[in-house]
Amino acid sequence: MKSGPGTEVGIGDDAAVLAAPDGRVVATTDFLLEGRHFRRDWAGPADIGHRAAVRSLADVAAMGARATALLVAFAAPAALSSAWALDLSAGLAAEAERAGATVAGGDTARFDRVLLAVTGLGDLQGRPPVTRAGARPGDVVAVAGPLGHSAAGLALLEAGHRAPGAPGTAQREQAPPSAGQPGLAALITAHLRPAPPYDAGPEAADLGATALMDVSDGLLADLAHIADASRVAVNVHPAALDPAPLIPAAEVLGLGAAAPLEWMLTGGEDHSLVAAFPPGTPLPPRWLVIGDVREGEGVLVDGRPHPGAGGWEHFPNSSWH
Amino acid sequence: MKSGPGTEVGIGDDAAVLAAPDGRVVATTDFLLEGRHFRRDWAGPADIGHRAAVRSLADVAAMGARATALLVAFAAPAALSSAWALDLSAGLAAEAERAGATVAGGDTARFDRVLLAVTGLGDLQGRPPVTRAGARPGDVVAVAGPLGHSAAGLALLEAGHRAPGAPGTAQREQAPPSAGQPGLAALITAHLRPAPPYDAGPEAADLGATALMDVSDGLLADLAHIADASRVAVNVHPAALDPAPLIPAAEVLGLGAAAPLEWMLTGGEDHSLVAAFPPGTPLPPRWLVIGDVREGEGVLVDGRPHPGAGGWEHFPNSSWH
Repeated sequence: MKSGPGTEVGIGDDAAVLAAPDGRVVATTDFLLEGRHFRRDWAGPADIGHRAAVRSLADVAAMGARATALLVAFAAPAALSSAWALDLSAGLAAEAERAGATVAGGDTARFDRVLLAVTGLGDLQGRPPVTRAGARPGDVVAVAGPLGHSAAGLALLEAGHRAPGAPGTAQREQAPPSAGQPGLAALITAHLRPAPPYDAGPEAADLGATALMDVSDGLLADLAHIADASRVAVNVHPAALDPAPLIPAAEVLGLGAAAPLEWMLTGGEDHSLVAAFPPGTPLPPRWLVIGDVREGEGVLVDGRPHPGAGGWEHFPNSSWH
Repeated sequence: MKSGPGTEVGIGDDAAVLAAPDGRVVATTDFLLEGRHFRRDWAGPADIGHRAAVRSLADVAAMGARATALLVAFAAPAALSSAWALDLSAGLAAEAERAGATVAGGDTARFDRVLLAVTGLGDLQGRPPVTRAGARPGDVVAVAGPLGHSAAGLALLEAGHRAPGAPGTAQREQAPPSAGQPGLAALITAHLRPAPPYDAGPEAADLGATALMDVSDGLLADLAHIADASRVAVNVHPAALDPAPLIPAAEVLGLGAAAPLEWMLTGGEDHSLVAAFPPGTPLPPRWLVIGDVREGEGVLVDGRPHPGAGGWEHFPNSSWH
């Protein structure tokens, strides 16, 4: 069975056979686990499929590559309807298509919770891969895509808010609307269906990025990975960050005025792309300069260590910690 | 971080970058889930790592390819010791090495049970992939590797037998020995650590195999996949199968004389390789001719439909069915 360009053998055989015209392949695999990374009462099947795709597609983009294919291992209880599984597949396939990739293979199993493990494959199209290790003192740090929106959306979901107009599940349509504020619904959608600018990955590579990551654990935590791998310090300029879209969520949740910036600095799962570029690199408008690279180690905020620089935890009250 | 030949970027970045000198990549992903595919009281961590590797490595071989790399997504309870996880990693890495592959990346998560999703990547080295779809009437069907050994070993484990001399867990060392019969211990090991002849995959391709699979669901069930994909009938000659190694297990379990042949026809998870070859193909000794391809459809045993041709079920008494 064939499916999509570059797929010589697709779903239905022991393994897929995919074109790797560059002579190299970018490959990553990530879990999305029920109760750990998502809840079925908060996210519909298409949301879950979408997010499972995003995790791997963003990792491929974060090497400077174009995603070509996903392999999807999917486990679910026998009682789950086939319509639910088809909606999940559709969510996966739609987000893969947005990145230019196809679902080329997979595995299925029965399990008492929904489990996804998605492998993303990508093509560097002749580029050198952009790792975390090349940032140099003097580089500028820039981000493409939102920061903190997913964390704010998760906080809203945890407080009982729902996105009334979002597509998908019956549960969501029956859920209470978020006080009619479209800005809140957009944040919930940013959590359920993050939309990374995948093409900013190859773009960053072509612009000469010295280091590149997707923001999955939180800006400070992920910049710490770049700092460690590159043996430099990364300094964030919070004044460059615009917390305005997050302020209504902080207000409706009764949080302090510091909450929006904290979401932007420490919230995970936006899967935006963050890169270091040589000084003077002319950056397209979607790249917002938010910091600089210095001699030293670790991550700084306005030149000082930040107390909340730990990694992002999904569902921190889970009993599995 | 680099690891192994062909690995341009290995563990520690957003994704791995691997050589694909053939301009194509073979890719497959498979789950190995606690309670579904293994039990921690029966299998030690190195066994579990070994089996997780086998599932994907055998799928790569079954396309006629040489495995190059594994990506491993691993979830486990926080209470699990790091020594346990390291033993699992060692089991994975050792079996990958036996196939000529390295562990090039992965993901980790907390979960209340142990979950593995392993992606195998492989290199066709210029060969056309061998799918399930090319078998032609007149072809011979041959198998490389054991049949039914894993199923017999699982039946012994289910009945309380253990392999006393096997490496690995403390549980196993404390378990009752299998009445001092080395043949029984070998079958238990065949379940815990199946050892497919991976190089028989590329060998079959080079010999001109028209269809190729690994026996994961059971011989008849997997031959049915070849029959369906190739639009032919596959006829098995049971007289060609040697049940002798399985007879002591059937006897100690009090099963009838038909049990060994049933294990060979329907038992899964040996991950041996089964292929169709054009008539007259000179086959190396490890390929045992066990059947033929005919006009028609489905799988036959001695020319007749077989009642027990359904797929293999791990732990058929699990509540998740």
